[in-house]
Amino acid sequence: MKQTHSEAGRERGELALLAEIRQRAAHATGFGQKSGLRLGIGDDCALLKPRDGEELAVTTDLSIDGRHFRLDWHQPEAIGHRVLARGLSDLAAMGARPVAAFLSLGLPRSLAADVAGRRPTWVERFLDGFLALAEACETPLAGGDLAESTLAVADIVLVGAVARGRALLRSGARPGDLLYVTGALGGATAGLARLAELAEAGRSNPPRIPKKLEALLAPHLYPQPRIAQGLWLQRRGVASAALDLSDGLSTDLAHLCEESGVAAEIDASALPIHLAATLAQALHGGEDYELLFTAHQATRLPRAIAGVPVTRIGRILKTRAGRPTMTLISLQGAQPLEPHGWEHFS
Amino acid sequence: MKQTHSEAGRERGELALLAEIRQRAAHATGFGQKSGLRLGIGDDCALLKPRDGEELAVTTDLSIDGRHFRLDWHQPEAIGHRVLARGLSDLAAMGARPVAAFLSLGLPRSLAADVAGRRPTWVERFLDGFLALAEACETPLAGGDLAESTLAVADIVLVGAVARGRALLRSGARPGDLLYVTGALGGATAGLARLAELAEAGRSNPPRIPKKLEALLAPHLYPQPRIAQGLWLQRRGVASAALDLSDGLSTDLAHLCEESGVAAEIDASALPIHLAATLAQALHGGEDYELLFTAHQATRLPRAIAGVPVTRIGRILKTRAGRPTMTLISLQGAQPLEPHGWEHFS
Repeated sequence: MKQTHSEAGRERGELALLAEIRQRAAHATGFGQKSGLRLGIGDDCALLKPRDGEELAVTTDLSIDGRHFRLDWHQPEAIGHRVLARGLSDLAAMGARPVAAFLSLGLPRSLAADVAGRRPTWVERFLDGFLALAEACETPLAGGDLAESTLAVADIVLVGAVARGRALLRSGARPGDLLYVTGALGGATAGLARLAELAEAGRSNPPRIPKKLEALLAPHLYPQPRIAQGLWLQRRGVASAALDLSDGLSTDLAHLCEESGVAAEIDASALPIHLAATLAQALHGGEDYELLFTAHQATRLPRAIAGVPVTRIGRILKTRAGRPTMTLISLQGAQPLEPHGWEHFS
Repeated sequence: MKQTHSEAGRERGELALLAEIRQRAAHATGFGQKSGLRLGIGDDCALLKPRDGEELAVTTDLSIDGRHFRLDWHQPEAIGHRVLARGLSDLAAMGARPVAAFLSLGLPRSLAADVAGRRPTWVERFLDGFLALAEACETPLAGGDLAESTLAVADIVLVGAVARGRALLRSGARPGDLLYVTGALGGATAGLARLAELAEAGRSNPPRIPKKLEALLAPHLYPQPRIAQGLWLQRRGVASAALDLSDGLSTDLAHLCEESGVAAEIDASALPIHLAATLAQALHGGEDYELLFTAHQATRLPRAIAGVPVTRIGRILKTRAGRPTMTLISLQGAQPLEPHGWEHFS
C-alpha cells in the first residue's frame, strides 16, 4: 500500500482505510520476519528476502464482481477469503511456501466508506475473511493498492519461495505415471448451485447461510488452499507434475497433458466425488482448489497428507495419433473426455 | 498468465489473446534469463531467481478507466505505457533493477476481441505501448491474469532486485540533508490539462495528438520511469532517502517527512518547473514520476544522471513545535506548504 499523508480532521477516506489495513495487517499477520518479508506496507515497494538457495514463485489473480464473485450473493468475508485462496492455491500447486501477499482493491465508495456510521463496513468484513485465511496460512499482507471504482475488483498477488529447481511444474508428467488428486471434487460447483438457489429465493441480499447448509456451501465459500500438501510433495520430490484445480478437472488435466506432452486416462469409479456433487460437477466444475498431481508408478503415497485424502484417479499415457488426449473409463467403457472449462471473450 | 487449453476451431477468445500475449512477451522481452526470470507465462506461477545477496522489491498499482486513465481521452498505446510506468517508477524509487512484470487486465469484450475484423485491436495497441516500455527497461512480462469486465482495469505488479540492505527508503532523511529532484516538475499535469482541451474540442475519440503538441503532452502520456537514476543513486549509496513523485511534490514530500520524522523547506526559485507548467502545477501536480531524494550536505552530486538533470530544491530540517512540517521559501518570504494531493473515498 502506498502510504498516504495523515492529516488530522479528515474524513474517513482512503488514508483512514489504508491506516486501518496497515494496522490490521501488522496485527493479524505479524510473522513477516519468519516468512521472509523485510519491509511491508509504507514505502514505494515491499522488500522480500528469500533464504539462500531459494527461488521465488509469483502469481496474480484478478477477481471481478459479477464474474468471480457477486456482491448480491456473497458475504464480504467469503469474498475476502476466496480472493486470497485463489492466489495461495497457485503457490500450493508449485510446492512453494507463502512469503507475502499484495492486494489491489477497486471499490465503490459505498463499500469502502462508513455509510451512516454502520460498522463493520463491507471492506472491514472483507478484510476479516482475507486476514483470517492469511493468518491460517502464515502469509503477511505486505502491500497493494486502493482505488475508487464503479465496479468492485480485487487483484491478488502471491509471492512464495521454493528451493531452487524443486518447484512442482505442469510439464513433468511422463507416460506410466499415476494421477492423483487431494480432497473431493465437485463440491465447490455444487455449493455454488445451492447458493444461487438461496439468492433467488432469499429475502436478504446477500443471502444468510442457514447453519445446516454451512458445510454444504463451505467448498464454494471457503475453499482451503492445499499449501501443506504442496509443500509435502515438493520436499519429498515425489510429484513429477502438479497444478491446482481452478478451472475444473477436465480443463486442468488438459493443461497438464499439453504442458507435459502426454495423454491421460481417468477412472470414473475412482473419483473422490463430493457427497453433494454429480459426476459431471466432479469432472468439469471449477474452483475446488484441490491439487492434481502425478507420481512415478513405483512411488508409494500415503492415503492422506496433513489430514487431506489423496486419491489415485488415473494414469498418464503416451500421446498417440487417433487416440483422444484424455479418456474417461467407466462402466460404459472408454470415452473421450473433453475439457469443459470456460473462457472469457469467446 | 494462466495458460488455457488450446482447442482447434475456437473463436478468437481469451485463449487466443493469452497465446498472443505469451508469444509477444517472449519476443519483445526475451531477456528474462538475464534479469532473473527463470520461468515465465504458462505454469501456475512464474519463477524468479534473485542473485546471491539480493533482496526483492515488489509493488502493485491499480489503474481504472475514469480514474487513472480515460478510454475516451487516451490512445491505447499511452494507457499501456502509463500502466507499466507507474510500477517501474516505484522500483526506481527503491533503487531496484527490474526483474519481472505481471499484468492483470479486466477488459470489456469490445476492447479484447476482434470487432468486425479490425486490426490491430485495442488490446494489441495497449500491448504495443506496454511492451515497448518493457523492452526499453529490460523488464520481461512474466505473467498476469485476464478477465472480462464491464469496466477496464489494469493492475500492474513489478518485481525488482536490489543488494540486501541497500534499497532507497523513505525513512532515511536527516536534518541538514539537502533535497533534490530529477527532471522537471508539473509537465504531466500541464499535459493532462492540454489533453482535456483536445478531448473537449476534438472530433475523434480519443483525440489524435497533433505533431506539434507531442512534446508538450509527452510528460503526461509517456512518463519515463527513472530506473537508471535510481540505480545510480543506490549503487553509490549517496541518497539518504528517496521516493517517486506520483501524487505531487507537496504530498510526496509530506510522505518523506512523515516516514523520516523530519521537516523540510523548498526554495521556489530553485524548482525545475516544466516549460509549460505553473508553479502550482510543479508543487502539487501528480504523475511526473521523477525521483525526490535527499543526500548528506557534504555529498557532491552531478548536474545530471544518465542524461536527466538533478536539481537541488531545498533542505531537510528538524521538526519543531509551531513550525509547519513543510515550508515554501519564495520572494514573498516563507509560507507553510500544505500537501494538496488527492485521495479516494473521502
